[in-house]
This record gives sequence, structure tokens and C-alpha cells, in this order.
Amino acid sequence: MYLGMLKADRIFARHLSLPLRGFTMSLLVVGSVAFDTVQTPYGQAEEILGGAATYFSVSASYFTPVRVVAVVGEDFGAAQMRVFEDREIDTRGLERARGKTFRWRGEYHGNMDEAKTLETQLNVFQTFAPKIPPSYLDSSFVFLANIDPTLQRHVRQQINGARLTGCDTMNFWITGKPEELKKTLAAVDVLVINEEEARMLSGTENLPRAAVAIQKLGPATIVIKRGEHGAVLFQRNSIFFAPAFPLEQVHDPTGAGDTFAGGFMGYLAKSGDLSEVHLRRALVYGSVMASFAVEEFGLSRLLRVKPSEIEARFKQFKDMTHFDV
Amino acid sequence: MYLGMLKADRIFARHLSLPLRGFTMSLLVVGSVAFDTVQTPYGQAEEILGGAATYFSVSASYFTPVRVVAVVGEDFGAAQMRVFEDREIDTRGLERARGKTFRWRGEYHGNMDEAKTLETQLNVFQTFAPKIPPSYLDSSFVFLANIDPTLQRHVRQQINGARLTGCDTMNFWITGKPEELKKTLAAVDVLVINEEEARMLSGTENLPRAAVAIQKLGPATIVIKRGEHGAVLFQRNSIFFAPAFPLEQVHDPTGAGDTFAGGFMGYLAKSGDLSEVHLRRALVYGSVMASFAVEEFGLSRLLRVKPSEIEARFKQFKDMTHFDV
Repeated sequence: MYLGMLKADRIFARHLSLPLRGFTMSLLVVGSVAFDTVQTPYGQAEEILGGAATYFSVSASYFTPVRVVAVVGEDFGAAQMRVFEDREIDTRGLERARGKTFRWRGEYHGNMDEAKTLETQLNVFQTFAPKIPPSYLDSSFVFLANIDPTLQRHVRQQINGARLTGCDTMNFWITGKPEELKKTLAAVDVLVINEEEARMLSGTENLPRAAVAIQKLGPATIVIKRGEHGAVLFQRNSIFFAPAFPLEQVHDPTGAGDTFAGGFMGYLAKSGDLSEVHLRRALVYGSVMASFAVEEFGLSRLLRVKPSEIEARFKQFKDMTHFDV
Repeated sequence: MYLGMLKADRIFARHLSLPLRGFTMSLLVVGSVAFDTVQTPYGQAEEILGGAATYFSVSASYFTPVRVVAVVGEDFGAAQMRVFEDREIDTRGLERARGKTFRWRGEYHGNMDEAKTLETQLNVFQTFAPKIPPSYLDSSFVFLANIDPTLQRHVRQQINGARLTGCDTMNFWITGKPEELKKTLAAVDVLVINEEEARMLSGTENLPRAAVAIQKLGPATIVIKRGEHGAVLFQRNSIFFAPAFPLEQVHDPTGAGDTFAGGFMGYLAKSGDLSEVHLRRALVYGSVMASFAVEEFGLSRLLRVKPSEIEARFKQFKDMTHFDV
């Protein structure tokens, strides 16, 4: 039965080459929805819609139907809801709680390779206990964005039929809840993580060794995000590098990593094929989506990108990386 | 006549696929020869043969005949000379002066992305005035390794028939002799430079913009070295990225950039073809050679590498960067 569905997915993906809304290729994401206040050398923005689940959902929605699990406060209004609705993101898992939405305030300097957090107000996020609507339980692709690893695992365990589960994490959980994080990693297929956090998690500076060490914790596929230096896909027997798209205008790196993960998981869910060829293409699509996200503050550019622009930039990645042997 | 030679070069390169010793494809390098004392997290080495011209020459010698212009002291002995002779590097331009050879002492920490200089003894290098032997004057490829830009230009001006001139520089000259450096840049075709120094030279953090700004100073081709993040080739209408080869064992990064430049220029001199296809391959060969250099202290690994190993790693670069569109 399971194998039959797997095969069916592939046939649909190959012949229709379209996301099938509501069918098994749905991609569930759990994570934060936030209001961000951001300052970069190129400007600032106040209380704009952000959060890992938001960037991920919008990015992935260009490839496949997305279902979001997150919590927002009473200050989350119709304008914010419309962002999800316009991208046809399923918000039945978007819980509205009493209080204010999670807020983050940060700034970037120089080449903007690192965010400096100035203030975090957890608000309704402090007591977030993800609730999975029954209609989400058949999701075949799951992404556990950066939240408490115990909650990540709780979500993972409810989606029994998932064909591929990815997760992200951060230094806060690596140092604060290492045992819980290890249990979560044992239950996922893909870890999408920053370079420095991969080093911290594995306790080794050397990246190929770090990847092997993390693979031993569970995920066979390690995707390492290197910011302006691109991304690397480590599988058990292969390594694939993609550069970051060279932009002359980077205005705001906020959400780049989550947008990347959304493109990566979104493309995989769309293709329904987890072979090497498709994992590589997914890494490039992730890089493409991240490159749009950083061109403007917040979600602005990402909400206006056209499928033809995504495809054009995908081809540009080939032009910038291929050579004749 | 000039065009005829150009065509002949191409025919030789294509059909013989061999460097032709003493013919027009000779590659001249001017730079430092040094004794290095190096400490890394993986060990240490005392007073081993190093210097930009040394790493460059040995690396390039796997592709084409190399001619070196440098100065050494009375402590430069037969063992050191044999390193050059064994690689059939032309040492008629290796001047022996009274005093001691240039010495550098440094260490690397963490992921070894930056050398910390502990001591520099210029010794005979302090009064270095490069002398070009008459037999070097027909060199068709020239590389001006990191020395005083006034001296770089002095060498450049003597090699009138050069088809391609590359140069390197560093923060010391960018801040200390900016006007001299600009005059030198106006007389070269290729600048091979570190990422941070490209930012410093151009006064801009954004790398694509930095490359455009540097192109305006003269060199149409900018090669940016990013250490463990690979290298980028900027031409007027294209960008090409190569990752660094993922090594599980990096013992000593000393000389990696010069070894890279040697592979890059050496391959171009061998091919005799300056088209996009060959510039891209040159960037990959540079990365291949650098990846061998860092596997052991000093020149050890580089002196033992086999042509078949170079070709195998070149193909691995393709496997790690290509994807299906």
C-alpha cells in the first residue's frame, strides 16, 4: 500500500508536473510566525510579518500545497492572514491565542552574514504546543522549523505516513537541550542547518566530518546553509555544492534560511522523487528562492516573484557552476 | 606574426597536450621564496621551504614550463634548489644574495581560515629588485605574486610580448601603496585576490560590485579566493563559482592561494586558450592543486601528487557541482 502510493506520487509528479492540492504531496511546516523589526545598512522595517513558518510557507507555496502549524496573537489581523490566503497556504493549523504575536528585533552590519538580536518577545510563542488538525495528518512531507526539539518530535510522531521529514535547529537548542535534540534528529530524514551550527552540533570544525558525525545521529541527508557562500548537500556517498546567487542588492537577509528550506522541501514535495537528481535540483531551488527573499525587506520580493523568474534564475545557477571536462 | 604564434600555441596544446619546454607557453612568476615556520591545530613545521613563488612554481610545473624570479640568501642550499630542479623549474632568475632568506612564522586556529603572522624577517627580500634574465623575456604568461606593486609593474613592463599577465596583492599594499597598486592593476589582465582584500581594494562589501569596481581599474578577469568557500571567476559578462574541494584532513593552509594561482595560470599557459571554457577549467585546476597543497605541511603533498590524481580530482569537482536542469 505504502509502496503503491509512493509510485503513484512519482507518476503524478512526472506526468502532470503540477502540485496536486490536498493530495499526498502536501507539505506541512511547523514553526514561528512573528512580527520583525529589522535594521540593515540599507534601511529598516518595523513590525513586518516574518517568522520561520511564514518565510518557509510562502517560499514552498510556489511549488506545492503548504499546511502551516503555528500560533499568533490577537494582533494578527486580516492583512497578515491575507498573505497566507493569497498564496493558498492552508491555515487550519494557525492557532490564534490570547496575547501578542511573537516579536523579534535585530540588526545586520557589514556584509550582513550574521543577525544581531536586540530583543525577543516570545509572547504567545512561549506556551506554543503545536496542534495538528486532522486534515493535516496525511501530509507526506513535513518540515520542523526551528522550535523546541521536544515539540518538533511531538509533531513528527503524529504524521506517521510522512515520506520525508526535514528539520532545522539553532545554537540555543544545541547547547540548551542536546539530548532532546538528538532524539528528534533520530526521527528525521533531512537536517537543514547553518554552517556554524553544524560545527557546534558535531563538535568538529571540518565540515565533511561534521556532516558524517550528524548523519550518525539520524538524518541521512544534511543540508548546510553557508549564507553568502551558498549551500552544501551531504548524502552518505555524495556531496553537492551550490553557490549563493550573486546579488548586487542584498537589503535584508532575514528569513533567507527558512525561505531556502521552503524552496528545498517545496520542490521535493512537488517532484515526489527523492533521488539524487531531485535532491540536487531542490538545493538549487532553495538557493533561488533565498536569493529573491533577500532582495527586499521582509516578504516583499518573495510575494511578487513570478514562476518564470524562478525558472530563469534556476538556469542561471547552471550557467554559473557548470564547466566542460 | 603574433596571431600565427597564437594559433600555433593552440594547435600544440590541443594535439600534444603537453607543455613545450622553452617555447612561448612558458610561464614566468616573480615573488617570494621563504623559510616558513608554521603551527596549526594538526602539528607544526620549522623552517620549511615556502614563499609565494615557490608554491606557485611547483603547482604550475604540473601544467607548463615555469621560470622563477626571486631572491634567496646564503642559507638556501642544495636541498632547496633540488625542489625546483626536480620539477624542472627554470631557476636562472633565482638570485642569490648575501644574507639570510626571507622568513615567515605564523599560526592558524579553529577552522584555519586566517593566518596569524607571528614574525616576518624580510632579510634579503628587503632590497629585492627583480632581475629578468634575457632568456625569460619571451615568456607569454606572467604572474606577479604578492610583492611591492612598483616591482610588479617593473617586471610586467619588461615582458612586452606577454599574452596574459596575472597578479596578486595584499592588504599591506592596498592600504600602503594604493596609487602604485592602481598603476600596476592598469597593466594586468587578471587579478587573483582574497575575498577580504577584494572588499578592501574596492571599498565595497558586496562581492559582485567589488569585482566590477576592480575591473574598472584594469583587469578584465577577477579571480576571488574564498579559502574553504572556494573561488569565483568574474569576467565582464559572466560569473563562475567553484567550491573548495571538501577535505577531511586539512593540515596546513600555508601557500594554498599561491598554489591555486599556479594551477590557474599553469593550466591557461598549457592550453594556450583564453576562452571562457578554458578560464573555467583553469579555476577548477587551481582549486584542485590548492586542495592537495593543504593536505600536508609545506610542499610535501604537492611534490608527490600524480597527474592521474590531479585529473581524478578535477572530475570529482564536476560530480560535486553539476546538476540536471
